[in-house]
Amino acid sequence: MKICIIGGGGLVGQKLATELAARGTLKGQTIDTLVLADVVDPAPIAADFTVERVTCDITDTASVAKLVDADTDVIYLLAAIVSGQAEEEFELGYDINMFGIRNVLERVRALGHKPTVVFTSSIAVFGGDVPDPITDNSYLNPQTSYGAQKAMGELLINDYSRKGFIDGRAFRLPTISVRPGKPNRAASGFMSSIFREPLQGQEAVCPVGRDFPHYYLSPRKCIENLIKGAEVKAEDIGQNRAMTMPGRTWTIGQMIDAMTAVTGPQAETLIKFEEQPAVWDIVKGWRFDIHADKALSLGLEADESFEDNIRHFIADDKAAL
Amino acid sequence: MKICIIGGGGLVGQKLATELAARGTLKGQTIDTLVLADVVDPAPIAADFTVERVTCDITDTASVAKLVDADTDVIYLLAAIVSGQAEEEFELGYDINMFGIRNVLERVRALGHKPTVVFTSSIAVFGGDVPDPITDNSYLNPQTSYGAQKAMGELLINDYSRKGFIDGRAFRLPTISVRPGKPNRAASGFMSSIFREPLQGQEAVCPVGRDFPHYYLSPRKCIENLIKGAEVKAEDIGQNRAMTMPGRTWTIGQMIDAMTAVTGPQAETLIKFEEQPAVWDIVKGWRFDIHADKALSLGLEADESFEDNIRHFIADDKAAL
Repeated sequence: MKICIIGGGGLVGQKLATELAARGTLKGQTIDTLVLADVVDPAPIAADFTVERVTCDITDTASVAKLVDADTDVIYLLAAIVSGQAEEEFELGYDINMFGIRNVLERVRALGHKPTVVFTSSIAVFGGDVPDPITDNSYLNPQTSYGAQKAMGELLINDYSRKGFIDGRAFRLPTISVRPGKPNRAASGFMSSIFREPLQGQEAVCPVGRDFPHYYLSPRKCIENLIKGAEVKAEDIGQNRAMTMPGRTWTIGQMIDAMTAVTGPQAETLIKFEEQPAVWDIVKGWRFDIHADKALSLGLEADESFEDNIRHFIADDKAAL
Repeated sequence: MKICIIGGGGLVGQKLATELAARGTLKGQTIDTLVLADVVDPAPIAADFTVERVTCDITDTASVAKLVDADTDVIYLLAAIVSGQAEEEFELGYDINMFGIRNVLERVRALGHKPTVVFTSSIAVFGGDVPDPITDNSYLNPQTSYGAQKAMGELLINDYSRKGFIDGRAFRLPTISVRPGKPNRAASGFMSSIFREPLQGQEAVCPVGRDFPHYYLSPRKCIENLIKGAEVKAEDIGQNRAMTMPGRTWTIGQMIDAMTAVTGPQAETLIKFEEQPAVWDIVKGWRFDIHADKALSLGLEADESFEDNIRHFIADDKAAL
């Protein structure tokens, strides 16, 4: 079993690699080789199998050709320009999030060996005047370039799967919280930083009100779901390979209360509420009454509570910082 | 008023140009110049304004740059590789139907003058396990590469409109019947040829049964709707620029009966029913319980009856053949 994680240097890629190293198997097969590919050299992962770390540019077909060969059984296609950056750098967003994805799929089509491809889409594909609730049969109406590019990625995954070039699966990730590490340029960044920073004694800014609702998943559950997402049988998925990954909807206030319930009242005092119009312009169009029936029926899971998300952060990430 | 029709050599492009020549105006302004662009030299159109005929390759950015300049007020983006051909020639379909569309939009973005762009999508964006009825809020679940590419085109039109680069409008065309001229490589070709050929005393093959239902529009109504589609105000359309063009659902049997009602029983005897698996594999996934409420509310129209479609063909096209 050879696996390639494109975007292997990012939060999800690194956690996925760590979990694969702990398991040693995927789809019932022993992992021999894991290729971690990213635009900058991915951090090393300790594992009993071979871990290759590769720098790549997925907009360059020659660079993509070096990542994936006919022995690659599973490809995780996680690489993306995040929402805030894709909004500011219009061309770069399309180059990576649409043409880059297509380059990987074209490489696979040329090889002809039909690997499993797990693509991370986003709930940013939803938005605008589409009636609630948002289901897997709702019109994809993205309100950002990032969301549009992810919706195009889903269409590619479905079309390449239908044609038999890949065994594709596309999961619309909820906003991941609590994310460890540095802030990135995602407009959703504050949805982690208002917990991450206070839990480490630092101030953080919340640019929306306490009643702002959104759809979340912990990093730990996201990784579990990505592994299940590769393992679920194609015949159980059916024709449409794109679906929303299970999450839960909470308001900022509910999440702060959960943090307080787990860690006491001190952390909350470090959150400063300040409006940020550039962030608001993006997040105001996001949807939150989202249902993930198909993924739930396939065995993927949401967190039980945001208290769990806080506990997972403390157990998995805070100690390592 | 300068207009560019990309795909100006095709059936819709030629009829649209002819109608624009008859009207002399669009959006209340006198037409000065009409650029007819296509991959082969478009047929000339008699008009009181300047008609430029240009051969172009929309996969080539230099070729696109020659078509569109800062004086181009309205662009009709009709060019496409049709469904049957896009299914057989996978790369060509994406090159024209996705990358070609993007090249035109990128040219416009670079010019910075925000023209009106009218894009012809297709009801082939619908399909699969999406519950009836199909509305403008239904999940786009194409079952062909052509449909996937058209869905991506809609996403591009919406994103470029949202960013203020274009004033875009995307209309999902019903199957156009009765089409004049030679058969093309669209899987829907028989839906015209079983009327067109018998009405001219020739045999035609119907590869599906009499009870096969589908969603149709006459060429005449399609052209009227494309003109209205450019003229409707952006503020009346709202955020989502993509919608289904009004059509009507009929079975093959109902359409044959309509032909008989208009022209007598002779034509029907020339239709031979013969299964064609390659055609069936494509059309079986198409949806027909389709509603176009948004476009209807904006003043676009369907035909009153298929008898009208037959009469339009006889009046507009049969005499000219």
